[in-house]
Amino acid sequence: MPRNDDHRMLTNIGSDRVRSVRALGRRAVRERERLFLAEGPQAVREVVAHRPDTVQDLYFEAQVGTQATDIRQETVLDAARAAGLSIREVSHEVLVAMSDAVAPQGVVAVCRPIDVPLDTVLDERPRFLVILTNVRDPGNAGTVIRGADAAGADAVLLSDSSVDIYNPKVVRSTVGSLFHLPIVTGVPIAVLLDRVRAAGLALLAADGSGDTLLGDVDLARSHAWVMGNEAWGLEPDVRAACDTVVRVPIYGKAESLNLAMAATLCLYQSAGLQKRPDIR
Amino acid sequence: MPRNDDHRMLTNIGSDRVRSVRALGRRAVRERERLFLAEGPQAVREVVAHRPDTVQDLYFEAQVGTQATDIRQETVLDAARAAGLSIREVSHEVLVAMSDAVAPQGVVAVCRPIDVPLDTVLDERPRFLVILTNVRDPGNAGTVIRGADAAGADAVLLSDSSVDIYNPKVVRSTVGSLFHLPIVTGVPIAVLLDRVRAAGLALLAADGSGDTLLGDVDLARSHAWVMGNEAWGLEPDVRAACDTVVRVPIYGKAESLNLAMAATLCLYQSAGLQKRPDIR
Repeated sequence: MPRNDDHRMLTNIGSDRVRSVRALGRRAVRERERLFLAEGPQAVREVVAHRPDTVQDLYFEAQVGTQATDIRQETVLDAARAAGLSIREVSHEVLVAMSDAVAPQGVVAVCRPIDVPLDTVLDERPRFLVILTNVRDPGNAGTVIRGADAAGADAVLLSDSSVDIYNPKVVRSTVGSLFHLPIVTGVPIAVLLDRVRAAGLALLAADGSGDTLLGDVDLARSHAWVMGNEAWGLEPDVRAACDTVVRVPIYGKAESLNLAMAATLCLYQSAGLQKRPDIR
Repeated sequence: MPRNDDHRMLTNIGSDRVRSVRALGRRAVRERERLFLAEGPQAVREVVAHRPDTVQDLYFEAQVGTQATDIRQETVLDAARAAGLSIREVSHEVLVAMSDAVAPQGVVAVCRPIDVPLDTVLDERPRFLVILTNVRDPGNAGTVIRGADAAGADAVLLSDSSVDIYNPKVVRSTVGSLFHLPIVTGVPIAVLLDRVRAAGLALLAADGSGDTLLGDVDLARSHAWVMGNEAWGLEPDVRAACDTVVRVPIYGKAESLNLAMAATLCLYQSAGLQKRPDIR
């Protein structure tokens, strides 16, 4: 056994440690402690694989599940041990008490924030960015981050008026993508637009009111997609600040697409659906 | 006032009528009564506009909301009156008691099933169909129906192992698309695949295991997309029965896309993102 495993199983659901983990379900506590929770084998596997530097503690429950579940968990724990992470076994009751999830699936990691400064992203000369402003629903924000990852975007930038990316529902709905690409948070939308434009990217607003169809946009030059609130779209001043306002065509009688659907189509249009050597 | 309005406001939340509407939240009751519920101004507007023949009763609460809400509701009620529908005012408490929704938004319609026989769809010589099998999450099923509508599919066919399309969560998440295009339900998947193939359409399985990339599929000939369960995809025998198994390329580090995202990309690839004269 590697020496970073503490072998005393945690069983007291009333302990300060359990309560402090559980409290990370609240935004104010996350911001004060500068910590958040990744829950379940998929999220924990991805943070261990891609951002082990951000993992403060990892808690797991000895599995009494199927063989497949046990193997999956062992793989995650082996990777965590190999990365030299602090690992602690807990009882089922403690894991449930720590987690926001209805079914925490055996493992949670307490992580330090993964967001990066805007300069870090712009210094890399990005060619394809995603900017979210006023996106309030955790599931939508997480799904767009997952889509940005799948489409090969260089980074996702969230304005200060957007949902907290460390909300457990956001973390879950990114299905690990939160740890795959650089994410910027907390910058006013006007600053994001100015800085990204100054870095040479075209600003493309995705909005049902757009007069340019998605298929007609020049995506060969570097660009950033700007997406707004799920219910009311982009504010007029944000639309006005963009170079092009783009809408996804509607062929049938539907009034609109939802944010995640429209975002997926725009981002994949950027990625190009053509066969490329670097895809899998 | 048109004569089809009954002017006595319903106020008794314990009445048989209110209870019988409320009971439509349960699948067994929906199937026995051959009725379901469309809730909120958007769904009700769409059923009144596109399938008024299926509306049995319409209940509304006099609005005390914003001017915009009142105008929206009046528009729906005017259209319902023009269609000669049975309309009844109810108290706020009655509307809440009737509805499955947390916020029923002032209006509900009790509707007869909108699904059509498979023959009705195939007799129209469809060129672009969507087949769902084992889709269990109401939100996913509704979102795919919405996407099929937006992409201009000719119909959606759900196998008998899929979620009930009259589940209030499905109805809500279609945002009216349930009433826009023909929908077939309750047919075994093997029969759906046989009949659709016999009608001359290629069967395209959408599955992460596919060896054909989305951008490489011939979509010029008539075809049906076959989509499976959100967690475990398509069953091996369904994949084997299809002509091509297609996967959406992943450009970044994401492991996969969710069902709604993958479906949206596939369906829009069929629609073609090119400018067409018939789009809006």
